[in-house]
Amino acid sequence: MDTLHTPRINGARLWQSLMDLGALGATPKGGVCRIALTEEDKLGRDLVVRWCREAGLDVRVDEIGNVFARRAGSDPTARAVATGSHIDTQPSGGKFDGNFGVLAGLEVMRTLNDLGVVTRAPLEVAIWTNEEGTRFTPVMMGSGVFAGVFEAGFACEQADRAGVTVGAALDAIGYRGAQPAGEVPGGMFAAYFEAHIEQGPVLEAAGLPIGVVSGALGQQWYDVVVTGQDAHAGPTPLALRHDAMLATARMIEAVNRIARDEAPHGRGTVGYVEVTPNSRNVIPGRVDFAVDFRNLSQDGLDRMDAAMRAAFAGIADAAAVQVEIRQVVKFEPCVFAAECVNAVRRAADLLGLPNMEVVSGAGHDAVYVAQRAPTGMIFVPCKDGISHNELEDALPEHIEAGANVLLQAMLSVAG
Amino acid sequence: MDTLHTPRINGARLWQSLMDLGALGATPKGGVCRIALTEEDKLGRDLVVRWCREAGLDVRVDEIGNVFARRAGSDPTARAVATGSHIDTQPSGGKFDGNFGVLAGLEVMRTLNDLGVVTRAPLEVAIWTNEEGTRFTPVMMGSGVFAGVFEAGFACEQADRAGVTVGAALDAIGYRGAQPAGEVPGGMFAAYFEAHIEQGPVLEAAGLPIGVVSGALGQQWYDVVVTGQDAHAGPTPLALRHDAMLATARMIEAVNRIARDEAPHGRGTVGYVEVTPNSRNVIPGRVDFAVDFRNLSQDGLDRMDAAMRAAFAGIADAAAVQVEIRQVVKFEPCVFAAECVNAVRRAADLLGLPNMEVVSGAGHDAVYVAQRAPTGMIFVPCKDGISHNELEDALPEHIEAGANVLLQAMLSVAG
Repeated sequence: MDTLHTPRINGARLWQSLMDLGALGATPKGGVCRIALTEEDKLGRDLVVRWCREAGLDVRVDEIGNVFARRAGSDPTARAVATGSHIDTQPSGGKFDGNFGVLAGLEVMRTLNDLGVVTRAPLEVAIWTNEEGTRFTPVMMGSGVFAGVFEAGFACEQADRAGVTVGAALDAIGYRGAQPAGEVPGGMFAAYFEAHIEQGPVLEAAGLPIGVVSGALGQQWYDVVVTGQDAHAGPTPLALRHDAMLATARMIEAVNRIARDEAPHGRGTVGYVEVTPNSRNVIPGRVDFAVDFRNLSQDGLDRMDAAMRAAFAGIADAAAVQVEIRQVVKFEPCVFAAECVNAVRRAADLLGLPNMEVVSGAGHDAVYVAQRAPTGMIFVPCKDGISHNELEDALPEHIEAGANVLLQAMLSVAG
Repeated sequence: MDTLHTPRINGARLWQSLMDLGALGATPKGGVCRIALTEEDKLGRDLVVRWCREAGLDVRVDEIGNVFARRAGSDPTARAVATGSHIDTQPSGGKFDGNFGVLAGLEVMRTLNDLGVVTRAPLEVAIWTNEEGTRFTPVMMGSGVFAGVFEAGFACEQADRAGVTVGAALDAIGYRGAQPAGEVPGGMFAAYFEAHIEQGPVLEAAGLPIGVVSGALGQQWYDVVVTGQDAHAGPTPLALRHDAMLATARMIEAVNRIARDEAPHGRGTVGYVEVTPNSRNVIPGRVDFAVDFRNLSQDGLDRMDAAMRAAFAGIADAAAVQVEIRQVVKFEPCVFAAECVNAVRRAADLLGLPNMEVVSGAGHDAVYVAQRAPTGMIFVPCKDGISHNELEDALPEHIEAGANVLLQAMLSVAG
């Protein structure tokens, strides 16, 4: 197969499908609010399932509501090559996050139908339940249950703020399936590829349409409490203060330094800071803040953890305050299978699409699926790196390019 | 007059008066809630006015509710030597802030009555209206009107959150007097001395019972807005961030450094910080915070202002964020009259009370009165430097020592 004869997806059809799906739960500012297992989610699922059936795909639903739509292959013994993502959104989400990965997979099937191509292995597109975790936690619930990270029963018992459980919500929208989660007809996926907007600014800054995703950063999140002593800003000389905010400022700088020391993959963020009593002329007696560390290796995360503990202890001593650190979240780093990463890169190269190797800074369904099957991801740029926002946007040519890479990568494994 | 024959106040009586007044508005934790111009404030004023009348003092009330209780002198042409403070408190205030200065003044009168001493100049004790500013702003309202810093009409129009004006509240508690503010029978005070707990940790740390207050720090307060760009903590590499919190952390460190460069009187505090969106895995796009700078000279405050503007601009540039700075409060530095400062020091020395020169970091009624009359202040230690807190506490021997210095200083001027 040379470049001239490489099949191409129909970019206009894919774009139109994104706009049609984006109309369900559309917000006035051009975004989408289609929270997991709501009526809007049901409408979105129903639409995509109808499209899948119209494309001749065989649709299954598992016990946690994951939807799988299969296009048969010629070899009855071959394991499926899968793709997919999610169609639930944040409350003020966009049209591309998740939706692109699902509809790019559907577009691959439609394109092969148009071309009359039957692959050796079956192809499958998945809609994973509740990736966003905005109504029900844990996040990435459907793919997590699929991968065995948590039990379907546990997931179904989780309730939203109104007390509605995942199980009840699945029943209400008609998406509690019979198939045990993690069972795949013919055996576990031979490979899984997920196309996604980058949700960051790297590709846009580099001016490249395709990111070949080599893995996903591990994450360690911490709650930190700094305790000093409230005091009047005027009568208390600097040397006699126990200023929890000054100590926190130095800890925030340390978080940044520790992340810079782990370039290029280290990330350190303090996004949450709560000051007590938070009055302009009172030296803060207490600050609660959160640290988000990410890195591509567990060794790297361990180094960051140790560096933080040492730095915070020294800063606290010098500022005559106390500090407590509690780790609250942990996601292991994920390195995608070399054959899948290479398949994505070769597909982009074959199509003449400039690309670079990137890592995913955020979690994705692919990170859980990677625990069960060889996995890769394809990133395309999004405008200003903005996502989880009604302003989320992407260029049609990048969306088309990403779907073409997905098609090519899937074909390279499915034969 | 030598030390042996120096008159002494009755420490037990003063302490009991402090406890009796502290019972009005007492809180379960041992503090006081007696907010300006409330029913509790009326009860407190009524009690102190009754004590003043029982001590034979002549009581006047001015148009902003300041109360003046005069003990006649022998020379009808002599101007009064005054003292006083306030009896309103913070919502969770203590028994000593303000109350000590008023009751120490009353105790001076009672002591002279006991001794049958008639001074040459009249003596006067003032209760200034609404020093705390917790219900009505501006703070130090009564002494500010007395000093001509703002008009009585303006002050009376100020309303609390419920819409009740100062004028209406004065009428309701029966403390809107006829006397024009700032008029003193026989002419402006020859001197004004105010005794107060330090509200800071300096005297306690030095182990000294008396602070001879040489002046009060000027204050410049600022609102600062740092604007960056919200972004996902994961997908956004450090180099592509516009992290408003990281920039703020560096600005907080700069505020501290700028204050240290103005030792010993420079103070720099960031007590208020509000982060947007304040989510643990989102790089903050905006931080609002407040800077409180204090110094003993306007030159010093000007240097701090300039250093802050330069530092913040550099930090903002380096962090790729915007910064806006707006000055919102300004109090001029105050240097007390040398003759009053010296009178306080000589009084403490005469009494054999170890003392040191200190400055007031906070505003006091004395700072406004100093604009009209030679003024001095006497500080006594408070436990752990804590004030504006139900835990506020002071030792009986320090309270007694401070009142003795007040007596001696007033006598040194009143003859």
